[in-house]
Order: sequence, then C-alpha cells, then structure tokens
Amino acid sequence: MSKLQTAMAILIEVFHSYSGKEGDKNKLNKSELKNLLKTELKIDGGDSREIEGMMRELDADRDGEVNFQEYVTLVAAMTMISNEFFQK
Amino acid sequence: MSKLQTAMAILIEVFHSYSGKEGDKNKLNKSELKNLLKTELKIDGGDSREIEGMMRELDADRDGEVNFQEYVTLVAAMTMISNEFFQK
Repeated sequence: MSKLQTAMAILIEVFHSYSGKEGDKNKLNKSELKNLLKTELKIDGGDSREIEGMMRELDADRDGEVNFQEYVTLVAAMTMISNEFFQK
Repeated sequence: MSKLQTAMAILIEVFHSYSGKEGDKNKLNKSELKNLLKTELKIDGGDSREIEGMMRELDADRDGEVNFQEYVTLVAAMTMISNEFFQK
C-alpha cells in the first residue's frame, strides 16, 4: 500500500470503529459522533446541544445520523484547516 | 496523535511531497498530478490527453493546477468508492 492508500484505509477504519458500536453500523449517531470527535480530533463538544448543532451541520441528508460521506466532508474540512496552518 | 490525525497528516505530507517539486510549491501541475496518481493510487493516466481531462475535472478554480482543496476532494471521492467496496 502507498502512503495515500494507508491514509484512506485509516479514514475508513476509524469511521467504522465508531459507527459500528450502536444502531446502524454504517452511520454515526449522536453519541458515536461525540466519541469520535473527542477521541480522534480532541474536540470536546461540550453539552449535548453543541453536539446536536454540529450533527445538523454535518448531516447533509437530514436523517439524524452522520454517514461516511458526511464524515469524509468533515475530515476534508479539518485537513484543509490543518494544511493552512502548516503553510504559515 | 490519534489515528485520524495520523491519516490527516499523511494526506498533507503526500500532497506536498508532489506539489513541492516544480513551480508553485502549493499546487500540483500536470506532471506532479500524474506522478501522484501513478505512485499513490496506481492510476496510470495513459496519454497526456487523459491526464489533462482529469486535471480539468479536479481543477475547480480553473487555474490549470490542482490545489490542496481540489486534491482533498479527489481523495474523499476515492475513499468513498473504497468504503463502498468494503461494505459489500
């Protein structure tokens, strides 16, 4: 596997290690999203209202959960912010 | 670093290891994109017309090069395709 393929495999593995815990195995519900943000991105969503706000922003198809595509969108945005930081 | 942060760092590192070779250090020109696709994703773009077509599709801001955001969009799309494959 190339470096980039390794990164892609990690993105997939991380998503499923959280989404597989409860309910729909291929979607993040509110508590799974909260755990992922806290553990993987050190984002402490604070009270549940903040997590709900974040979820609504990510949940493009408005089904109340975050699917893989919505998660990749988040990671892409976070990565762009990190990249801008490193270019300074 | 968490697993996800590691993946994000790899995405950034891979981009710059190709974009930094020629011209604008923060953008992929045609030959840098070709090298990245071939080495990292095993995509052999064939003749230069195919690479040019791919470049036009990725190059959202139409400046003739692929910036980090356009690259992340490509990686996100490729990762979604891989994820669907693994769910089957």
